[in-house]
Amino acid sequence: MPSTYLSFRCSVLWLILSLEAVFIVCSYFLFSDRHILSYSDRTITYLAWQDVSHMLIFGFGFFLMFLKRYSFSSVGFNLLIIVLGVQCSLLMQNVSVFLKEGKLKGSLESLIEAAMSMVAVIISIGAVLGKTNPMQSIVMTIVEIIVFCMSRWINTYILEVSNHVSMMHVHLFGAYFGLAVSSRFSEPSPRAEKNASTPKSDLLSMLGTLFLWVFWPSFNSALIVEKHKVIFNTCLALAVSAVTAFALSGLITKDGKFRMTHIHSAALAGGVTVGYAAESIEYPWIAMILGLLASVMSILGSLCLQSCLHPTLKIHDASGVHFTFGLPAVFGALAQVLLCVIETKSLSFDCEVILNIGAICFTISVALITGLITGLILNLKLLKPIPVSKYFEDQMYWEFPHLAVGF
Amino acid sequence: MPSTYLSFRCSVLWLILSLEAVFIVCSYFLFSDRHILSYSDRTITYLAWQDVSHMLIFGFGFFLMFLKRYSFSSVGFNLLIIVLGVQCSLLMQNVSVFLKEGKLKGSLESLIEAAMSMVAVIISIGAVLGKTNPMQSIVMTIVEIIVFCMSRWINTYILEVSNHVSMMHVHLFGAYFGLAVSSRFSEPSPRAEKNASTPKSDLLSMLGTLFLWVFWPSFNSALIVEKHKVIFNTCLALAVSAVTAFALSGLITKDGKFRMTHIHSAALAGGVTVGYAAESIEYPWIAMILGLLASVMSILGSLCLQSCLHPTLKIHDASGVHFTFGLPAVFGALAQVLLCVIETKSLSFDCEVILNIGAICFTISVALITGLITGLILNLKLLKPIPVSKYFEDQMYWEFPHLAVGF
Amino acid sequence: MPSTYLSFRCSVLWLILSLEAVFIVCSYFLFSDRHILSYSDRTITYLAWQDVSHMLIFGFGFFLMFLKRYSFSSVGFNLLIIVLGVQCSLLMQNVSVFLKEGKLKGSLESLIEAAMSMVAVIISIGAVLGKTNPMQSIVMTIVEIIVFCMSRWINTYILEVSNHVSMMHVHLFGAYFGLAVSSRFSEPSPRAEKNASTPKSDLLSMLGTLFLWVFWPSFNSALIVEKHKVIFNTCLALAVSAVTAFALSGLITKDGKFRMTHIHSAALAGGVTVGYAAESIEYPWIAMILGLLASVMSILGSLCLQSCLHPTLKIHDASGVHFTFGLPAVFGALAQVLLCVIETKSLSFDCEVILNIGAICFTISVALITGLITGLILNLKLLKPIPVSKYFEDQMYWEFPHLAVGF
Repeated sequence: MPSTYLSFRCSVLWLILSLEAVFIVCSYFLFSDRHILSYSDRTITYLAWQDVSHMLIFGFGFFLMFLKRYSFSSVGFNLLIIVLGVQCSLLMQNVSVFLKEGKLKGSLESLIEAAMSMVAVIISIGAVLGKTNPMQSIVMTIVEIIVFCMSRWINTYILEVSNHVSMMHVHLFGAYFGLAVSSRFSEPSPRAEKNASTPKSDLLSMLGTLFLWVFWPSFNSALIVEKHKVIFNTCLALAVSAVTAFALSGLITKDGKFRMTHIHSAALAGGVTVGYAAESIEYPWIAMILGLLASVMSILGSLCLQSCLHPTLKIHDASGVHFTFGLPAVFGALAQVLLCVIETKSLSFDCEVILNIGAICFTISVALITGLITGLILNLKLLKPIPVSKYFEDQMYWEFPHLAVGF
Repeated sequence: MPSTYLSFRCSVLWLILSLEAVFIVCSYFLFSDRHILSYSDRTITYLAWQDVSHMLIFGFGFFLMFLKRYSFSSVGFNLLIIVLGVQCSLLMQNVSVFLKEGKLKGSLESLIEAAMSMVAVIISIGAVLGKTNPMQSIVMTIVEIIVFCMSRWINTYILEVSNHVSMMHVHLFGAYFGLAVSSRFSEPSPRAEKNASTPKSDLLSMLGTLFLWVFWPSFNSALIVEKHKVIFNTCLALAVSAVTAFALSGLITKDGKFRMTHIHSAALAGGVTVGYAAESIEYPWIAMILGLLASVMSILGSLCLQSCLHPTLKIHDASGVHFTFGLPAVFGALAQVLLCVIETKSLSFDCEVILNIGAICFTISVALITGLITGLILNLKLLKPIPVSKYFEDQMYWEFPHLAVGF
Repeated sequence: MPSTYLSFRCSVLWLILSLEAVFIVCSYFLFSDRHILSYSDRTITYLAWQDVSHMLIFGFGFFLMFLKRYSFSSVGFNLLIIVLGVQCSLLMQNVSVFLKEGKLKGSLESLIEAAMSMVAVIISIGAVLGKTNPMQSIVMTIVEIIVFCMSRWINTYILEVSNHVSMMHVHLFGAYFGLAVSSRFSEPSPRAEKNASTPKSDLLSMLGTLFLWVFWPSFNSALIVEKHKVIFNTCLALAVSAVTAFALSGLITKDGKFRMTHIHSAALAGGVTVGYAAESIEYPWIAMILGLLASVMSILGSLCLQSCLHPTLKIHDASGVHFTFGLPAVFGALAQVLLCVIETKSLSFDCEVILNIGAICFTISVALITGLITGLILNLKLLKPIPVSKYFEDQMYWEFPHLAVGF
C-alpha cells in the first residue's frame, strides 16, 4: 500500500512537470513571431497587474488559511495552482484572441486577464478546501480554467457582453462550479475536530480578507479605462458592507457577539456585487445601497444555507463560497441589468438586456454542469481521493522536520 | 442583568445600522447632482489613495495588536471604526468644501482627505485601547471626526494654514484628544496580567509598524503635488529615526538590550515630525537632523512621561500615543515654523508665522477640551462603561467557537 | 565579566550613533549645493522605490524569520541594517556619480540604487544568520556596502557593463561574500536544537518569500526604462520556477512530500536568473526555460551542496543563500552573455562579451577575497564573537518583559 501510494505521489510530480513542458512548448509555437507581441508601456497597466497578483497570492492564500491544520497547504497549494493556472489561462487567452482578431493583446494586459480568470479556480478550490489531494486540485484547475475561458469567450463574442462584465462572471462561475464539485465529495462529520479554526488561524485569515478588501477596487477597475469612478463606487460599497457585516453579525449570533467568519464573508460581498455595475453607477448612494444589500444577503444566506439548504442537498461548502461570492455575484449581475434598464428608460426589454440575462444563466449552467462532471472525474479511483478521516490535514503533503522537536 | 446587557448590545448594533442609514441618506442629498462630481483620472491620485488605505487598514490594525488578548478587537474594531468614520468624514469634507466653494472636489481626492483625517481617530482610540466598548468607540469616532473636520476647516479657511499642514495636525489632534479622553477612564492596575504583550503579538505589532513606516512617505506626500522631494526627505528622516531608536533603546534599558516598543514608537517619530516641513526642507541633512531629534524626543519622552508625568496626572496612555505621535508632532509643527522664519530671513515675526503658531495652539486646545468632554460623555452610565477588571479582553465581543476545542 | 559585556554593548550603541553622525555630516557636505539636487517627478520612479523598499523591509525581513528563536532579531536587525546601509550606500552612490559626472542623479533614483545595493548585504547576512552579534553585523554591513559600491563602479565605468547588469551582480556578490564570511565562523552542531524552524516560523518565512516573489518583477525592472517586457518575462520565469520547485521538491524528498524550504529557495531562483537577461529576451519561452533551469539548479544545488560540498569546505550556509541566490545568479549572468552572443550571431567572441564575463569573474573574486578578510576581522576578540552555544538566539539582544508571565 505505501509503495503504491508513493508511486502515485510521484505521478503527481511527473504530471506537474509534463504540464509545465506542455506550456513551454505551446508558448514556443504561440509566441514564435516577435511582431505579434506588443508591449505597451502604460504605468497603469503595471499597477493593475501588481494589485491583481497581490490579491491572488496574498489575499486568497491567507483568506483560505482558517483551518487549523491546513495552513501550509492553503498557502502552498494556492501558489502552485495559481502559477500553473495562470500559464494555462494565458495560453487560452491568447489563442482565443488570436483566433478572433489575428493578433495578440499587449502581453501584460493578457497576463492581467489570465490572473483575473484564476479567481474562478481559487473560489472553487475554496469550496472543497481540505478535501482534495494535489492531483485532484491540479486536474480541477486545468479543467476549470479551460471551461471558464471558453465560457467567457462565448459571453464576450457571441452574447456580446462587455469584456469587463464577462470577467466579473468569474465569481459566479467559481462559486457554482465549486459547489457542484463539492456535492460529489463526502461530507465531513459535523464534529470533525480538524475542521475548525484557532484564533491564530482566524487572524491570518482576517489578514487575507483585509488584503482582498483593500485590493478589491483595483480588481473591479482592472479592465476599465476610466478607473476613478469605479474605484470610488467600490470603496463606498465595501465600506457600507463592512459596517453592515458587523451589525448583522451581532444581531444573528446569540449574546450579540461578533463572529469572525461573518465579517470575512460579508465585508467582501459588497465588492463582489458592485463589480458588475460600478462603471454605470452615477450616484454614490446607489453603490452604498448595493453594498448594504450584498452584505445582508451574504449574512442571511450563510444563516439559511447552512441551516436549510445544505443539509437537504448534502453540499458541504468548506469556506462559504456560496454566500461570499455566489449570491452577491448573482445579485450584482441582476442589479447591473436593472440599472441598465433604468438608465435607458425603455420599458420594453431590449436586446442587450436579454443577452446580459442570458449570459448570467449560461454562465451558471455551464458552471454547474461542468462542475458536476469534474466532481465525478475527481472521485475516480484513478485519482486516489482521500478518505474523510484524512480531510483538512497538512501532514500528508508536507515534511515537518520540526515535529520531532515538539510542536 | 444579562438580559439588560444583551439588549444594550443590540442597541449598539441598531446604532451602527442607523448611522449607516443616515450616511446613505446624507449622501443621497449631497451627491444628488451628478454634475458636481468630478472624476479626475490621474494615476497618482489612485496611488495615494491606495497607500493611505493600506496604512489605515493594515498599518494601524496591526500596530495596535500588541495586547495578548485583544487581537481580534484590535483588527476588527479598527476596520469598523475606519469604515464608519471615513463615510462620516467624507460627508463633512464635502459639506465644508461645498459651503466654501460651491462645488465638490474630485471624489477620490476627497476620499483621500477623509481617510487621512481618520488617522486622528485611530490615534485617539490607541490611547484608550482595550478600555472602551464598541458603543463608546463609535460615539468617540463620530464626535472626534466631526470636531477634527471643523477644526481643520477653521485652520484652513480662517487661520489660512496650508491644506497640507492643516492635515498634518491630525497627529497633534489625535494624540491630545486621546490623552484627554484617557484621563477620564480609570487606570488599570499596574500588574494587570492582561495588559501585556506576548512575543507573537509583539511581532504582529512590528509588522504593523513596518507597514506604517514603509507607507509614511506616501502619507506625508499625499496632498502635495511635487511629491518626490517630500518622499526623499521623509525617507531620510525615517531612516535616521530608526537608527537612533535602536541606539537609544539600548542605552536606556538596563543590560543594553533593545525593547521592541521603543523601536515601534521612535522609528515612526521621524516620519511624524518631518511631515510638517517636508515640502520646504531644501537640504537632506535638515530632514536627517529632524528625524534624529524626533527619535530622541520620543524615547526620552517615553521615559519621562511614564515615570514622572503620567503618575501625577493619572493618565494611562495604552499605546504610548503621546510620545509616538504627540510630542514629535508638536516638535515638527514648531520646526516648520522655524524653517519658514529662517528661509524668509525676516527677523520680525510676520503674519504667517503667527497664524501657524496660532493654529498649533488652537488645534491642541480644541483637542484637549473636546477630548475631556467626550471622555465625560463616554463614562455616562448610559454607555455602560466596562469595569477595570474586564479591560484588555476580546472575549466580551467575539465568538470563539474554537475555545471548546482547546486554545 | 557582565560589566565588561555591558560596556561592550554600550560601545555598539555609541558606534551606531557615531555612524549616524558621520552620515549626517557627510550629507551636509555632499548635498550642500541645492542646485545639484534634481527632483524628477515621474510616478514610475516613485513606484519603483516603493516596491524595492517593500522587498527589503517586508520581503527579506520575513524571509529570514525561519529560525524559531530568532524572529525578533531577524525582523529588527534587518531594519537596523537596512537603514544604516542605505544611508551609507546613498553617500557612496552620490560620491561616485559626482566624481564621474560632476552632478548628482535625481535623488529618488539614487535612493533606489542605494536600496538595491543593500540586497547584497542582506543576502550575506542571511548566510551567517544567527551567528553574528549586532556589532559584527554593522561592521560587516558597512564594509560590504562600500566594497560592493566600489566593485559596481569598476564594473560600470571601467568594464563598461550596463548599469542594470552591474546592479544584478548584487546577488552574486552577496552570496559569495556571505559564504566567504561564513567560512570563518564555527559550525553549529548539526543537532543544535535552536537551529530549527517551527511551522509558525516557516509560515512567516513563506509570507516573506511571497513578498519577494510578488515584488521581484519590480526589482528586475527598477533600473530599466521599458519595463513591461522585463516584467512579463520575469513573471513567466517566476511562475515556471515555482511550478518546478514543487515538482522537484516532491521528487527528492522521501515519501514524495513537499519541503517548505525547497519552495522558498527554488521559487525565487527563476527571478534571480532571469534578472540579467530580461531586457534582451525576445520570446517568452526563453524566460520560461531559464526559470525552469534555475529552479532545477537551485534544488539540485541544495541537495549536492548540503551533502557533498559544505561538509568538505566546512561552510555552514544558514539560509541557503548559495543555492537561492548564488548559483542562479551565476547561471543567469552566463545566460545573458550567451543570449547576447546568439543575438549578434557573431561566432567570434567580441569585446562586450569578454568584458561581461570579466565582470562576473571580477565580482565573484572581489566578493570572495573581501568576504574572507571581513570574516577574519569579524572574529577578532575586539568584536566579541558569540560562542557557538549562543547561536540562533534572540534573548541576548531583546528585552522580553512578557517572559515572566509565561510564553
